[in-house]
Amino acid sequence: MSRLFEKAAIIGTGLIGGSLGGIMRRDGIAGRVVGIGRSKDNLDNALGRGLIDEAQTDAKKGVQGADLVVLCCPVGKFEEVARLIKPYLRDQAVVTDVGSVKGALAHRLEDIFHLKARYVPAHPIAGSERSGAEAADLELFRGAKCILTPTAKTDTRALGLVTDLWEATGAIVERMTPEEHDMILAAVSHMPHVAAFALVDAVESMPEGEKALGYAAGGFKDTTRIAASHEDVWRDICLLNRQNIIKTLDAYHEALWRLRDIIESGDAEALRREFGRIRQTRSRMD
Amino acid sequence: MSRLFEKAAIIGTGLIGGSLGGIMRRDGIAGRVVGIGRSKDNLDNALGRGLIDEAQTDAKKGVQGADLVVLCCPVGKFEEVARLIKPYLRDQAVVTDVGSVKGALAHRLEDIFHLKARYVPAHPIAGSERSGAEAADLELFRGAKCILTPTAKTDTRALGLVTDLWEATGAIVERMTPEEHDMILAAVSHMPHVAAFALVDAVESMPEGEKALGYAAGGFKDTTRIAASHEDVWRDICLLNRQNIIKTLDAYHEALWRLRDIIESGDAEALRREFGRIRQTRSRMD
Repeated sequence: MSRLFEKAAIIGTGLIGGSLGGIMRRDGIAGRVVGIGRSKDNLDNALGRGLIDEAQTDAKKGVQGADLVVLCCPVGKFEEVARLIKPYLRDQAVVTDVGSVKGALAHRLEDIFHLKARYVPAHPIAGSERSGAEAADLELFRGAKCILTPTAKTDTRALGLVTDLWEATGAIVERMTPEEHDMILAAVSHMPHVAAFALVDAVESMPEGEKALGYAAGGFKDTTRIAASHEDVWRDICLLNRQNIIKTLDAYHEALWRLRDIIESGDAEALRREFGRIRQTRSRMD
Repeated sequence: MSRLFEKAAIIGTGLIGGSLGGIMRRDGIAGRVVGIGRSKDNLDNALGRGLIDEAQTDAKKGVQGADLVVLCCPVGKFEEVARLIKPYLRDQAVVTDVGSVKGALAHRLEDIFHLKARYVPAHPIAGSERSGAEAADLELFRGAKCILTPTAKTDTRALGLVTDLWEATGAIVERMTPEEHDMILAAVSHMPHVAAFALVDAVESMPEGEKALGYAAGGFKDTTRIAASHEDVWRDICLLNRQNIIKTLDAYHEALWRLRDIIESGDAEALRREFGRIRQTRSRMD
């Protein structure tokens, strides 16, 4: 892999940022990787694991001279961080992000960086309920999709560089509009997280809930694994993609209630037909 | 392990029945294991994998002389099969089952076998979305809970034998009433299956559903893994444990709607608090 960047600054060296930094170092994609974060412990962890060359708690200092800046902090911090770092960015630096929400946020970030840096909105669809540099995995993005959501204003060369960056990690790069991205992600990620959180909450709230959880086996654990995800991340996502999440929750409610009605009616044939149809859809995904 | 039974007849040599048969043979728990089923292919598979000593498509013949009969077919078939085999059972044979529903069904089966055989209702909480003898696993029950739901009429010695059988598989045997069993299983297994089926259905039903499913990553796949479970099994469970499933679906709906309301209101602090609380509950389960 040839070098794409001289100095990469990664803001937030958690699971995604840490993994990306480690790959950039291992494969020589960047000459130097600076990890920026607030937690000294996590930065030390990232340094110790060789995910970054340098740790920096001051974002303003960390981004100076960088020709690539990647926003990997919780998506709810993006605007604040963008405004903070903007005056310290190198002219025409490529700025990208890994946020799970694009939509209006991508346009606002574009406006903030306008005329100073070249912003390319991106979202690698990879992750886990685990967090922090200790969860970093240099094979995390291999085979995963990475969606870029360029707009009419996106710089073509910067878009090419960010495409090269993600392809170098092993991800499959695709493009769509920020709006389409947010609708799709609400359906297959954001709403299902809310559904999993609600499932744990529902069982715990029942009179026999505490005891019942002791009998949960693999099925329940798989179904609710993502309910162990961090609340800061999911608060931000839910608020930033609120409209699509509400819309998909309503569709979920409709599907759930349709099954509930069939169960209540006792229509064995209809129930078998519905479950069978859904099983086939789900089985095709493996 | 000392021998507990001379001849065990397993009706339904799928994942659970096949695994149990294989364990009984491997560990000498039964002198002889007869597998009973309608699918010749599946029986051949069970024979080929050494899960049973003998294959039999006629249940009436298969159960003759058996001192243990285990109902491992779909729970919706239990009553029909019980009536069919009753005249052919050895007097005082121990009959047990692995059904996911107990409740009224356990009492009805007890009535059917009364004065002929000694019925002990049981439910090993183990499984997978996979099915058939090809999915059998001789370590399937190790560390899993197996709930026995004896009633006032249950024969004490038969109860002891079934307890010994499940402990020999490595399961942790517990007892509760059939009614408590059904409420708990509705909460941690039956309702979550309906929730997972509905989740796949909701996404597929959206205008952009087909495309969206192509972007589903690990989170969605885990959350909906059990929606690949077989429709016959889940139709039966949903109909037999209908009241508890409706009750727990209503509790789920309430929890889901509470989160939806917070998301819609945009109350960041409340959302963070709720997600954090639920994350802690879920994290304690691992």
